[in-house]
Amino acid sequence: MKKILILGAGLSSSSLIKYLLDHSNEHNWKIKVGDVSLSVAKEKIMNHPNGEAFEFDIFNEIQKEEEIKNADAVISMLPARFHPLVAACCLKNKKHMLTASYVSDEMKALNEEAKIAGIAFLNELGVDPGIDHMSAMKVVDKIKADGGKMLSFKSSTGGLIAPEYDNNPWNYKFTWNPRNVVVAGQGVSQYKQNGDIKYLPYHQLFERIETTTVPGLGEFEIYPNRDSLKFRAAYNLLDIPTMFRGTMRRPGYCRAWNVFVQLGMTDDTYVVENSENLSYRQFVNLFLNYDEKHSVEEKIAAKFNISMDSDIMYRLKWLGLFEHTKIGLKDATPAQILQQILVDKWLLGKDDKDLIVMQHQFEYEQSGKKHRITSSLVVIGIDTVQTAMAITVGIPLAIACKLLLTGSINVTGVHTPVKKELYEPILHELESYGIKFNEEEIEL
Amino acid sequence: MKKILILGAGLSSSSLIKYLLDHSNEHNWKIKVGDVSLSVAKEKIMNHPNGEAFEFDIFNEIQKEEEIKNADAVISMLPARFHPLVAACCLKNKKHMLTASYVSDEMKALNEEAKIAGIAFLNELGVDPGIDHMSAMKVVDKIKADGGKMLSFKSSTGGLIAPEYDNNPWNYKFTWNPRNVVVAGQGVSQYKQNGDIKYLPYHQLFERIETTTVPGLGEFEIYPNRDSLKFRAAYNLLDIPTMFRGTMRRPGYCRAWNVFVQLGMTDDTYVVENSENLSYRQFVNLFLNYDEKHSVEEKIAAKFNISMDSDIMYRLKWLGLFEHTKIGLKDATPAQILQQILVDKWLLGKDDKDLIVMQHQFEYEQSGKKHRITSSLVVIGIDTVQTAMAITVGIPLAIACKLLLTGSINVTGVHTPVKKELYEPILHELESYGIKFNEEEIEL
Repeated sequence: MKKILILGAGLSSSSLIKYLLDHSNEHNWKIKVGDVSLSVAKEKIMNHPNGEAFEFDIFNEIQKEEEIKNADAVISMLPARFHPLVAACCLKNKKHMLTASYVSDEMKALNEEAKIAGIAFLNELGVDPGIDHMSAMKVVDKIKADGGKMLSFKSSTGGLIAPEYDNNPWNYKFTWNPRNVVVAGQGVSQYKQNGDIKYLPYHQLFERIETTTVPGLGEFEIYPNRDSLKFRAAYNLLDIPTMFRGTMRRPGYCRAWNVFVQLGMTDDTYVVENSENLSYRQFVNLFLNYDEKHSVEEKIAAKFNISMDSDIMYRLKWLGLFEHTKIGLKDATPAQILQQILVDKWLLGKDDKDLIVMQHQFEYEQSGKKHRITSSLVVIGIDTVQTAMAITVGIPLAIACKLLLTGSINVTGVHTPVKKELYEPILHELESYGIKFNEEEIEL
Repeated sequence: MKKILILGAGLSSSSLIKYLLDHSNEHNWKIKVGDVSLSVAKEKIMNHPNGEAFEFDIFNEIQKEEEIKNADAVISMLPARFHPLVAACCLKNKKHMLTASYVSDEMKALNEEAKIAGIAFLNELGVDPGIDHMSAMKVVDKIKADGGKMLSFKSSTGGLIAPEYDNNPWNYKFTWNPRNVVVAGQGVSQYKQNGDIKYLPYHQLFERIETTTVPGLGEFEIYPNRDSLKFRAAYNLLDIPTMFRGTMRRPGYCRAWNVFVQLGMTDDTYVVENSENLSYRQFVNLFLNYDEKHSVEEKIAAKFNISMDSDIMYRLKWLGLFEHTKIGLKDATPAQILQQILVDKWLLGKDDKDLIVMQHQFEYEQSGKKHRITSSLVVIGIDTVQTAMAITVGIPLAIACKLLLTGSINVTGVHTPVKKELYEPILHELESYGIKFNEEEIEL
């Protein structure tokens, strides 16, 4: 019997846990799920005889040591800042570890030690990062194997609301951590276009937008997603002239969201004085110039050079931003206040289904001719537990864990799924879960 | 004999050291000046018999302990991050300490211990912070003593080039630390206007500009200077409807500087790839959209909606920003590269004189009538050593040190010069150095 330990049983763990329980008899697995909330962990186990839920505290050294010592593989679904605590303990006890998070420098530094210990630290095994890497590398490797030369790689992902349930003017609902949506893109974004490196500060992010069409879904906007440059090395495309990763939103979202960015309403670095007693309307006015002759709405219209009945103004009004609703949050940052305003309106309904959309564009040259492959993925959630986000984050992670425990993959050290021996079997099995890219190729 | 220890002998220490040496016979002082560069320390002593220069390393614990133990008062002109190291040692050895820097939370925390030790930690004794506090509190205290009620306090300072030597299109030269000028204003600025709190993100800072006139000098632009709100408590003006501190520049500077801020060229948080081999022109292009049909100049003109022969474009061109000059700096941040471009052009000439300009505006109500006092200070440097900056930073600090050692002021604990017993004697003596405010009062 193999024991799998899952730490963190939040929304994005549901499909992961379900897959492992569904396959537990076949492989003779015991699945232990720890969470700060015992009831959350229990919910995910659903009384399955091979599952066990327990209350887990990452700061309880004795418990952490004991649980990891008894496991054969550990999957950390905790916030990424806690991964190093788990990794250190896995290293000490020589246990495999898997995450859906970006490899941190701390994680990378464990590569040699993990190799010596004969264990695998597999990361970036979710959707973005995760499925994006795997599906991209499959095509890139094929182009290279066929003698093609990569000219351009662009890839974008969006976690959105399924079209059928898309009923608000932002065409957006919170299908994952709201906080991450509010602070998304802070810092500088970096990419390469036709040989030129480009740096884009946060306050310009939602102004440099591309658009694309996804078959069956229609139009999307794309804004740059943090550091695309580092993936040149990860994808072994060091000299590629164009390297761009983006985030997808429905048309019009970025220009409206840009109002929040421009005004400073997404700042999470300081506390607003007297935040508890301010109204939403007063909150907005904190960021506008003093002008007793004009209303908050008029000042926004003037600042952004938009009319009072513009699309943007309609979206802002729809959020209740200009209402006299009291904030009621003590010592809150602007980002925390904005999040509260949004959470009320962008709430996923109990019958809603979410959407994961991903699109890669590969341009390459072969035998003197230029080609473009457009590869698109659309995943719709099953319900509000088995969401598209939970499925696409959890299933590749679960498959990787299975492959590792059954000896089908044999790696040690710190990895992301950019190697064929990792991405090939995972992508293959993902197809049976409807996670399959639709590929189109044209000659340019 | 009293011994005064000065740590840090950079440009802004020259007037401080000169004052103390000039008064050393009268008061029987010995002045020791330590700097990382022995020659810099020696220059400032100018072979004065009461002075002694030595090479000082803040990380040499033994030397620090020894020097501070032998002193009666310590003046730290080191970068502000080193003050806590000096303060801890002063506390241990029960020595007074003075700085021209903002009181940090670390410094504030030493208040009780310093009181118990019977020593004074006097801070914010330069020009801004320093003379601004003293001159403001003198007027505020008088208004209050006369039964007036403060309605508005606005105060701005500029470190600029004297009009006679002002011969470039930016009307600006580096009269102090260039790095601080490049990154000035990063973070959020906060102020209060007519009862409304206002938060201004960095990328909006140079767009929300006020203007003022200083008698004899003409027009200035003012942009908000970081956190004005905290001075409500420091100045005992907790309920004042308007509280604003600003930085002064010559007209047109802010709109042109805003180009750098908008493009992200003042960012100091990441390293530009291949910075060494890029040209100034390529550096600018890093921050502009890819567009092979338009030149760097055309893209800037389009982005900022300015014409190719506009004032802003002229200022940018004058800096050499569009030249093919090689950067030659390895692993440099955008801010470091921008600084290098500016340092070449904004260099203070050997015969140049600098300018410190400060203006307060007080509005108050008394017996049902509203009044406005405008109080302005203009200081022109003597030469490139005794600059206006060095004089206004160093002389108040030197006077405070004298008052402390002669027992004319008697305080213990951590202080800034907002109390009458501190500001009154300092301001009085500053007048003999030409540091005197010109006051005008009108009824509103």
